[in-house]
Amino acid sequence: MDANNIWLNVVAVRQASPLVHNITNYVVMNTTANALLSAGASPIMAHAPEEMEELVAISGALVLNIGTLSRPWIESMLLAGRCAAARKVPVVLDPVGAGASALRTETCLTLLRTVRPAVVRGNASEILALCGAEGATKGVDSIKAPSDALEAAMQLSESFGCVVVVSGEEDVVLGGGRTVRLRGGSALMPRVTGMGCTATALVAAHVAAAGDAFTGALCGMAVMAVAGGMAAEQAAGPGSFQVHFLDALYAMQLQNIHDHVVVEA
Amino acid sequence: MDANNIWLNVVAVRQASPLVHNITNYVVMNTTANALLSAGASPIMAHAPEEMEELVAISGALVLNIGTLSRPWIESMLLAGRCAAARKVPVVLDPVGAGASALRTETCLTLLRTVRPAVVRGNASEILALCGAEGATKGVDSIKAPSDALEAAMQLSESFGCVVVVSGEEDVVLGGGRTVRLRGGSALMPRVTGMGCTATALVAAHVAAAGDAFTGALCGMAVMAVAGGMAAEQAAGPGSFQVHFLDALYAMQLQNIHDHVVVEA
Amino acid sequence: MDANNIWLNVVAVRQASPLVHNITNYVVMNTTANALLSAGASPIMAHAPEEMEELVAISGALVLNIGTLSRPWIESMLLAGRCAAARKVPVVLDPVGAGASALRTETCLTLLRTVRPAVVRGNASEILALCGAEGATKGVDSIKAPSDALEAAMQLSESFGCVVVVSGEEDVVLGGGRTVRLRGGSALMPRVTGMGCTATALVAAHVAAAGDAFTGALCGMAVMAVAGGMAAEQAAGPGSFQVHFLDALYAMQLQNIHDHVVVEA
Repeated sequence: MDANNIWLNVVAVRQASPLVHNITNYVVMNTTANALLSAGASPIMAHAPEEMEELVAISGALVLNIGTLSRPWIESMLLAGRCAAARKVPVVLDPVGAGASALRTETCLTLLRTVRPAVVRGNASEILALCGAEGATKGVDSIKAPSDALEAAMQLSESFGCVVVVSGEEDVVLGGGRTVRLRGGSALMPRVTGMGCTATALVAAHVAAAGDAFTGALCGMAVMAVAGGMAAEQAAGPGSFQVHFLDALYAMQLQNIHDHVVVEA
Repeated sequence: MDANNIWLNVVAVRQASPLVHNITNYVVMNTTANALLSAGASPIMAHAPEEMEELVAISGALVLNIGTLSRPWIESMLLAGRCAAARKVPVVLDPVGAGASALRTETCLTLLRTVRPAVVRGNASEILALCGAEGATKGVDSIKAPSDALEAAMQLSESFGCVVVVSGEEDVVLGGGRTVRLRGGSALMPRVTGMGCTATALVAAHVAAAGDAFTGALCGMAVMAVAGGMAAEQAAGPGSFQVHFLDALYAMQLQNIHDHVVVEA
Repeated sequence: MDANNIWLNVVAVRQASPLVHNITNYVVMNTTANALLSAGASPIMAHAPEEMEELVAISGALVLNIGTLSRPWIESMLLAGRCAAARKVPVVLDPVGAGASALRTETCLTLLRTVRPAVVRGNASEILALCGAEGATKGVDSIKAPSDALEAAMQLSESFGCVVVVSGEEDVVLGGGRTVRLRGGSALMPRVTGMGCTATALVAAHVAAAGDAFTGALCGMAVMAVAGGMAAEQAAGPGSFQVHFLDALYAMQLQNIHDHVVVEA
């Protein structure tokens, strides 16, 4: 996929403005909603069991993010996930902190088995944890490079029939026999909370607009890399980075994609 | 109401620094608190049933915002709303996403009947949904213009004896036989999450300081329009807009009101 | 403690990157996580009882912040606090709004008695409320100066064997017979939500890195003062202040400490 293809997908999100339903963590709700709005999508954050079916029914994609998990939210995720599966609304799973606790790892495995997400996006530690590797995480931050998790990602993709994104200094998108690498972004991104969660939400918006999990995963990650690279050019630190990142999502043009991401099949 | 009158109300909020109690959604808690602080008010976010009576008793206004609704929070809203009604603390209701699910629409109607809010502020889709119109919403974003919801707003105002604000490209404030239109703000505002929720909170601060629902609703919306216009002059996108918006609330002077809002009775 | 000592502690946090587990309020989760990341620490926000033991076991410090309290969260705080006490993980308590409701005051006293925090950081009103003073608070904002709460802070420190920080225009850190005053920061800080909560989290990161409660409390507060002073030089209001504050935490050098904080034993 080249810059022109990615650009067409950026335009598609802006034009279709897909509704993305997020059951996500408290830490990133605001920044996730703002990233989706800046990219042209329409976010809704909701978790009440009573409204899951109605909201999933009008959504173009569903994000399940376990960052600040608790039993009632797990129930809502399972309920929303089942509604999404029944209606063929694509689900994108973010296994935040998988490996840091049994609750997190097991909840992800339950969601993988019952909801069958279209895409799973995590850092290397999280992807390794979902494949049974132990001691690979430090809280919610990765202590492994994406290349360490390639085998685990392939295994995960094959076991559950999903596209897997391993994000890090280099991002890897794989599934259905294809593997693509992306380079871009900025060293400031691990110093901003919720950048991974933002990536997951942008992947969901792109999956909804493209109607294809692999294309959506790749374009969502490409947009992260481009906006990150654009923001880094103007940022003095993690605070100003966040401001410029949202402005970049909003203002992104074809030339920025040429300048700020390298995609290797 | 002219710019000088609005300015006196801006000064009144800064001097009285009313305590505004918010039972609001997870997405906007931080940005709402910051907007209230920048405008000179004093926010508290709290939802535990055990402390509702004590906190309402010391508050100048109560915001009920259903953005990330669930059963326990509905109970807290009803409890706090009843305490407020008993103590004549004005309540401002934000029906976020009314129409997108039965839970949201019905919760709003229950709150309208039992709490009798002083002001309801919503977008056109939400106000239409509260009057029984179907299919008028897309998640939490409006697909209608305020002018489409004028009749519904009047009906709502008469049924429940409240001031109604329909916000959008043009804002309408109506109640007690009066209708006022405001123009200002910026096209970037729908690209920032929680701008409507911020408007609701600023309305609450102004109702508390002015001691009058219509004046408070109008001044709160005027302040949104002015700060939005000021921010747009400096913003490169939705990220920098948010930064300049808070700075504008803090720095706003009489001349800015002259420059950035048009009020038509 | 002089600027060079504070600087060594700033470097220690960046190098050790301690994992700080936060059970904190919804309003500040995002900004707290970002402040910890900007300062070089690694935050995790989690509250599910099922994972408290595992997460406390890998953490360098635990923050308990009662800002948006409810019964289930109190249970998680007690559980996590007991795990921390058993494993000698230092706990930092933020009594947000103590005095504004019986629930808040009593929860703090229960946490003080059962968890034995290493540090308590509050504003003057909150510290007074923990010692039984009534009518000293306005919601979550202080109406007293730190000097009014000195006696209460000493009493608290002696009763529970903890370091106490009273923050305000001047900060006071006391415990074990020592009292230190800090001056710095900016008048904009009370106009930004969660600055006190951020201070508490930075104290926790420094306690984890220094392995000593008094040193950690003092350095955490010094870093707040320095970053606040640096941010104020560039800020036009509370919005831009927040951006520059995070950039300052990230970029802080020894000279900034010399320039922006005065420490008096």
